[in-house]
Amino acid sequence: MTAVKIIRSANQMQEEANRLRSGGKTLALVPTMGYLHEGHLSLMRLARQRADILVVSIFVNPTQFGPGEDLASYPKSFERDVQLAGNEGADFIFAPSEKDLYPDGFQTYVTLQELPGYLCGRSRPVHFRGVATVVTKLFNIVKPHTAVFGQKDYQQLVIIRRLARDLNFDIDIVGSPTVREPDGLAKSSRNLYLTPVQRRDALCLYQSLQNAQAMVTEGVTDTARIVDRTKLLIQSCPEATVDYISLCDPETLKNVDTIKGPVIMALAVKIGKSRLIDNAILNP
Amino acid sequence: MTAVKIIRSANQMQEEANRLRSGGKTLALVPTMGYLHEGHLSLMRLARQRADILVVSIFVNPTQFGPGEDLASYPKSFERDVQLAGNEGADFIFAPSEKDLYPDGFQTYVTLQELPGYLCGRSRPVHFRGVATVVTKLFNIVKPHTAVFGQKDYQQLVIIRRLARDLNFDIDIVGSPTVREPDGLAKSSRNLYLTPVQRRDALCLYQSLQNAQAMVTEGVTDTARIVDRTKLLIQSCPEATVDYISLCDPETLKNVDTIKGPVIMALAVKIGKSRLIDNAILNP
Repeated sequence: MTAVKIIRSANQMQEEANRLRSGGKTLALVPTMGYLHEGHLSLMRLARQRADILVVSIFVNPTQFGPGEDLASYPKSFERDVQLAGNEGADFIFAPSEKDLYPDGFQTYVTLQELPGYLCGRSRPVHFRGVATVVTKLFNIVKPHTAVFGQKDYQQLVIIRRLARDLNFDIDIVGSPTVREPDGLAKSSRNLYLTPVQRRDALCLYQSLQNAQAMVTEGVTDTARIVDRTKLLIQSCPEATVDYISLCDPETLKNVDTIKGPVIMALAVKIGKSRLIDNAILNP
Repeated sequence: MTAVKIIRSANQMQEEANRLRSGGKTLALVPTMGYLHEGHLSLMRLARQRADILVVSIFVNPTQFGPGEDLASYPKSFERDVQLAGNEGADFIFAPSEKDLYPDGFQTYVTLQELPGYLCGRSRPVHFRGVATVVTKLFNIVKPHTAVFGQKDYQQLVIIRRLARDLNFDIDIVGSPTVREPDGLAKSSRNLYLTPVQRRDALCLYQSLQNAQAMVTEGVTDTARIVDRTKLLIQSCPEATVDYISLCDPETLKNVDTIKGPVIMALAVKIGKSRLIDNAILNP
């Protein structure tokens, strides 16, 4: 393990990227908002295999939080993050200041017309504009050959694939499987906020996906039946409130009424104050 | 003069750019919509001095034309353009198809929040979104070190500088001075549509700028007086109708009431069916 190098300025990161590319090196980027957990580390391990140089960005991006969302309270643990990323073989941590990425007069945003209108985008109207914009910036700063994103944030992954294609980014976008606790709960920085009772109820997301796959395997094709059954399951958990349950096309995210091929089941559930998401491909 | 190479696909252009960059070459891009005139050629000459490889793109970008604008009738002269660009030392002509740049499902746009609200953006509401999007795409496809744009399209130049800064494009944006006919009319593909009488009246744009500089030199600082005098001058030309006359900050494009330092005077005038633009810096 070599020492990980911390870079704070976009210009300096760009110079490093230019130097490495000129030397024939390939770069992989794992963008994060810090407070790293096993899910992030699995992205790094995948990225590590794909390129000579691994860059992990740590930046809590203000433009992807709406008013009243948890920007101010988003957990931070920078020293620990550096240690963890270093253990996974990261060569660079890119951790810019907000002022560096959003200077005075900043006014340019990357927007998608359709994909942000589904799933999480419905309750978070500015979220994906912020994600698309900061990812575009990170792509131009780090100049990676490969960028790795978690399948847990499925809508984000679909949006970034589309953005990369539409804006002709010469970058391989890789989706990495969701990492789970032994009982099935998807790893998330937001799990930190759960009380023991909430932690138990949080399992309803994973159970909903398992249950839905079982129904599909038994031959159910009517997605309304699956949604109804899922609602009942989640309502049986006192701390849980459904935000959305969607069975949709894996690429366009449009709702599917009758299952004929693989569909994505995605759901968001509020557990206490935390909004948790999960998803799975359901195969008939 | 070496033969200019014509490239029709974004992927192929990207491969050439990667190959050239790996070989240590620098690239300059001159984006055009074809129908090249002396103005474009002057951009190429400037770009030619700035890099090892000159790429000229020729693409009539549909997303920057609003409904009822002149997309369908925009003049084309591809063979002649190739010849002219070749004479200026272009190494590559990048001339993609519409389908290649805007595939099925395309939905990602680059938008600026403030700068497109001024000058030409007021009467062309989707124009600069289309420009910002296609320029972002061309930057990612051609991967230039330098890109050259005409100062004649002043608002476009300011928008692209801001976009490049906001999205962290590692590209030097160069503005090239307006090329004029001997009598002062700015060169434009749209001059082609002018009758001899209109051609005479079209000179009112340049005369307005000259007259305004004379007023400023004489000590006039109240921009309203300059705008009023300019309106009278343009109204005296039977074929001319004012679209806008603006004296504004060179960077933010916000209106200036009292001239204290350099301001941009920009104007758009309809001459017959053609909408012509021009601008100049006025120095007190």
